[in-house]
Amino acid sequence: MRRINIGLLGCGTVGRGFVDLLARERERIRGRDGVDIAVRRILVRDADKPRPGINPSLLSTAALDILDDGCDIIVELVGGVHSAGAFVRRALANGKHVVTANKALLADSGRELFASAERNRVRIGFEASVCGGIPIVRALRLGLAGDRIESISGILNGTCNYILTRMEQDDLEFDGALRLAKERGFAEADSALDVGGEDAAQKLRILGELAFGPQHVNMRVHGIGDVTHAEIEQARARRCVVRHVATARQVGGGIEMRVERRELPEFHPLAGIRDENNAVVIRGRAVGELMFQGKGAGSLPTAAAVLSDVIEIAACSTMTP
Amino acid sequence: MRRINIGLLGCGTVGRGFVDLLARERERIRGRDGVDIAVRRILVRDADKPRPGINPSLLSTAALDILDDGCDIIVELVGGVHSAGAFVRRALANGKHVVTANKALLADSGRELFASAERNRVRIGFEASVCGGIPIVRALRLGLAGDRIESISGILNGTCNYILTRMEQDDLEFDGALRLAKERGFAEADSALDVGGEDAAQKLRILGELAFGPQHVNMRVHGIGDVTHAEIEQARARRCVVRHVATARQVGGGIEMRVERRELPEFHPLAGIRDENNAVVIRGRAVGELMFQGKGAGSLPTAAAVLSDVIEIAACSTMTP
Repeated sequence: MRRINIGLLGCGTVGRGFVDLLARERERIRGRDGVDIAVRRILVRDADKPRPGINPSLLSTAALDILDDGCDIIVELVGGVHSAGAFVRRALANGKHVVTANKALLADSGRELFASAERNRVRIGFEASVCGGIPIVRALRLGLAGDRIESISGILNGTCNYILTRMEQDDLEFDGALRLAKERGFAEADSALDVGGEDAAQKLRILGELAFGPQHVNMRVHGIGDVTHAEIEQARARRCVVRHVATARQVGGGIEMRVERRELPEFHPLAGIRDENNAVVIRGRAVGELMFQGKGAGSLPTAAAVLSDVIEIAACSTMTP
Repeated sequence: MRRINIGLLGCGTVGRGFVDLLARERERIRGRDGVDIAVRRILVRDADKPRPGINPSLLSTAALDILDDGCDIIVELVGGVHSAGAFVRRALANGKHVVTANKALLADSGRELFASAERNRVRIGFEASVCGGIPIVRALRLGLAGDRIESISGILNGTCNYILTRMEQDDLEFDGALRLAKERGFAEADSALDVGGEDAAQKLRILGELAFGPQHVNMRVHGIGDVTHAEIEQARARRCVVRHVATARQVGGGIEMRVERRELPEFHPLAGIRDENNAVVIRGRAVGELMFQGKGAGSLPTAAAVLSDVIEIAACSTMTP
């Protein structure tokens, strides 16, 4: 059986979830996919921090130890654009496949990184970068490869959707709903990227480029920071709900992308998406309207998406550009 | 650019859709996936029947002409178990990849055919065999490969769902709704496989084996032929709807599969699926609950699923068992 060695960069929420999930599923994957996947090295900031269940001899604080070592696949879960970008560039140049959950990096430097992967005949897996456990990247990359996509629309940020749902259901103003989202763990201490719309915009950019190819993008982003309970009540009186919706569609000069709050009629497919859930509606010329929904974030759903990419790359060694 | 030659078996509703869709999308696929896909031969029953837009020199009434010819991928769209099974067995033995929409054949002989494909180092694509344009096979095979599936439930037969929805919305008895389904093209002249539940059972068998692996199956199938309007009204009084639901879950001695009509509370995810639509809810241990919905049948949605398999096999020449 082929052994696939993973160099894991980062051991935060998702990294830890990946280690735990792989430990649980390794035998099943050996049986089903015929590959034995093992974490060989883990990059951490502080090697002395106690990490129950993780063999301390795997830990390193030196990225080059891992990037220049004999790993087959580098799993990048450090986040951010600068260090993560440098690590991914070096991994690709070293001829290693990369799996990443880093939407900011792909939204920022995706074209350059994919070109580097193609030159080096390796692959970049990025299922985890959009909508956590929902396999939407694979649906666009493979499942709908035979069709021409007409539009994508979705609820791509679980924090915004949680806040809007709670304002509606619990009669809260924005600040009260944001506080609740933080208490329940659905919003970070710094929620600016989420409520300002930038997080959804990064995900939309990745999905739009998958669906329509590299083109000029006209992007307009609005957040939900100024939504009022009165606005939600007025929508309800019209049998509508307020949702934070991201849309991408082909227009004359390129791709038009919008991230904005919208009033949707009650029977709209995205109107029924509540709390921290995500959903994506894809309209294809041949297949018509498809909808995918599920949890868009969280340690284990995101780790499952990372692991699915690792398995696919391990099981199919030729490069699919 | 690599040229991929297709031997197409069958030129009915889906076969014709495949030829039309490929003509429309061939240039886009050349640009995106770097493969040039062409239909080289087409097996038909009657080569003299007029088929506008299809080059008559591609047509043949002799299956062996096509199966033993230099095609790379055989697309089997003749349906049924006997001839189709013989064609697929010969194609695999000849070292050709196979793409099929034939759920009856896979439900009947899937294990034998996949074993033959593995021996011959070729692949079988079967996205189109379940739920038409919804990429649910790929979601289970690749997207959720890192997770352990706990259960699958779905509305897998669009004809049954159309009939139940119309009984509910238009206050019809079963016979009236069935007549309407036939008039609108959502039911075949012979609807026994659909309303008896066998069609949904074949699809469930394929999904269940993908999710849980080859195991003993305990299958129980009930149709919707004896449902009355009074039953649907009684459900409505309890704020419930009647749906034809297929479920599969791991139990002690294997996989328990059930196809039956069930009364679902209004807020159940499958309760909102109306008319000819299909939907599948997958519960994974790590990802939680995911739902996929869309059109489950039709010429172009099914052809798009066939073409997505052709593209994936063309672009990744190594075998993924």
